[in-house]
Amino acid sequence: MTPEDKRGYAVAIVGATGLVGQTVARVLEERSFPIRSLRAFGTARSTGASVRVGDVRAPVEVLDETHEPFAGIDLALFSAGDDVSRRYAQQAVRAGAFVIDKSGVYRLDDGTPLVVPEANANAIGAHRLVANPNCSTVPLAVMLAPIQREFGLAWVSLATYQSVSGAGKDALAEYEAQTNGGDVVRFLPRRVVGNVIPENGAWDDSGYGDEERKIAAELKKILGRPDLPVSATSVRVPVAVGHSEAVSFMPARPVSRDRIAQSLRRAPSVRFYDGAEYAVPLDVAGRDDDVHVGRLRPDTAHPGAFLCWLVCDNLRKGAATNAVQIAECALRTTQVPA
Amino acid sequence: MTPEDKRGYAVAIVGATGLVGQTVARVLEERSFPIRSLRAFGTARSTGASVRVGDVRAPVEVLDETHEPFAGIDLALFSAGDDVSRRYAQQAVRAGAFVIDKSGVYRLDDGTPLVVPEANANAIGAHRLVANPNCSTVPLAVMLAPIQREFGLAWVSLATYQSVSGAGKDALAEYEAQTNGGDVVRFLPRRVVGNVIPENGAWDDSGYGDEERKIAAELKKILGRPDLPVSATSVRVPVAVGHSEAVSFMPARPVSRDRIAQSLRRAPSVRFYDGAEYAVPLDVAGRDDDVHVGRLRPDTAHPGAFLCWLVCDNLRKGAATNAVQIAECALRTTQVPA
Repeated sequence: MTPEDKRGYAVAIVGATGLVGQTVARVLEERSFPIRSLRAFGTARSTGASVRVGDVRAPVEVLDETHEPFAGIDLALFSAGDDVSRRYAQQAVRAGAFVIDKSGVYRLDDGTPLVVPEANANAIGAHRLVANPNCSTVPLAVMLAPIQREFGLAWVSLATYQSVSGAGKDALAEYEAQTNGGDVVRFLPRRVVGNVIPENGAWDDSGYGDEERKIAAELKKILGRPDLPVSATSVRVPVAVGHSEAVSFMPARPVSRDRIAQSLRRAPSVRFYDGAEYAVPLDVAGRDDDVHVGRLRPDTAHPGAFLCWLVCDNLRKGAATNAVQIAECALRTTQVPA
Repeated sequence: MTPEDKRGYAVAIVGATGLVGQTVARVLEERSFPIRSLRAFGTARSTGASVRVGDVRAPVEVLDETHEPFAGIDLALFSAGDDVSRRYAQQAVRAGAFVIDKSGVYRLDDGTPLVVPEANANAIGAHRLVANPNCSTVPLAVMLAPIQREFGLAWVSLATYQSVSGAGKDALAEYEAQTNGGDVVRFLPRRVVGNVIPENGAWDDSGYGDEERKIAAELKKILGRPDLPVSATSVRVPVAVGHSEAVSFMPARPVSRDRIAQSLRRAPSVRFYDGAEYAVPLDVAGRDDDVHVGRLRPDTAHPGAFLCWLVCDNLRKGAATNAVQIAECALRTTQVPA
């Protein structure tokens, strides 16, 4: 990013009226991110709306390549889905913006860093396009990075309890309508209220769904462990905001529960719960940016392995906060003249 | 059981107005269990109510040892909690009844068989008191028994998505009140609507909860594998009826997914879903007695192991139907003169 004056950066939020885009605006304000000017891009159905970050307000515009939307933009935060990123992310880079992309388009691209700052901030380097991981992967990487660093990891296996907001605004509206007695099922594969749904994205031949493959592949890339055996079961649960995960992991060398607890207690962005304590989605939704890790215990199925329970606000640390943290890291690196 | 005449058995349902007790009455009727007479025992707050099985109706009575409640009873089905079973189950046996007990009191007792008929019906033998497993263990045993029999098992690990009805009538009423806008939290450890709760019963020093220990210990006993490494994470989800489980298991010897699928396809009481298909709680609640097993796939964290997704009506096969099936097995054995 290249701030043109001391008053801050020219920022564009792409997908500004989506759940993640709205949260990006909120987090930029909360963290007093230096903003000189703001552009907000959304779909046609959001025109007329506006987006505010602190004192800076922007009308929602429809993205249209004929108008050079990214001219003069220092930082572009994309969370508008794969199609929009495929079409505009590189264009924004060419226009001179530092781009943080929440879509799945670049996450596994060899030339694009996939970043959770607590795990691999240094991967940003001189890149001008950085991918922001899936909202289930972010908290997992935050928790496992210090374990990997200190002890190594032999394998990771998890089952998720993912909130409906992770599937976007329409899915959340569907959940809310069902909560109020409605029975329309359109954006989720099944009714979610009073139910749980072990389907999240397209299946591949091996029987894994898209979200499950993302979690495994992204975790390996973030931890720099392409060889790490990972398996996931992704389940949508009737929760508005807050992803939970039941995680089993095996350190690469024998280590006591106390050592793991010590590592998690001092891990950045981890709030560790001792004993059998834990957090639940309602504790964290809309509130903070920690990954709440509790119920750490030996995995009685796998001597030497551990089980734990993690909860994280999927819209904040799972998405928007992680993006803003990536921007903050870029500010601090050689990328950004002081 | 000793039917005193050809018209059937004298049956007592203890805990008759609880969720499981009510389902026992329904299942006895559906399966045309031969009943000559019925007694229904419940708490004082249920007096005035009555219970019906087919043409046979019984007023709800309060259990009171001074009135020899089990005199003349052939079959007593207990689902009234640990205290009632501790106080009355042996008394019922002494009075001549065949007792099927759903409480936790006798499940791990060395002298008492713990039975899932599909897995270990022969354990009933000449016993007059048979324990009925926990509602999370039953479907797991139904699914794993044929795998254990054909290939052996090296370990089992699972995370549950347990419905609120598994915690009883008061918890279910609490869930329904929360669904209708209420905010009282009394019978569950946290608000369950819009949330998930990784707590189910008292913790032990190792960090496991009561339900998690039950699942592991009961599964080992039912499969006759006291050495089997098992770990569980038990989570309550905002679902009324229907327990789901994300299960990982390792056969004792190398075996293909196709062989496992074949085994599950012909397993009694298993409905196997091919490819990436699956069932959800809303598909099974109140409807059938199968264990619905889907999403069978190689566990990419553990070469040679498999992941799958199972769903089962916790009040029916997880509790009442399993009890009635135990009774039917006893009818067919030498225990019961033809």
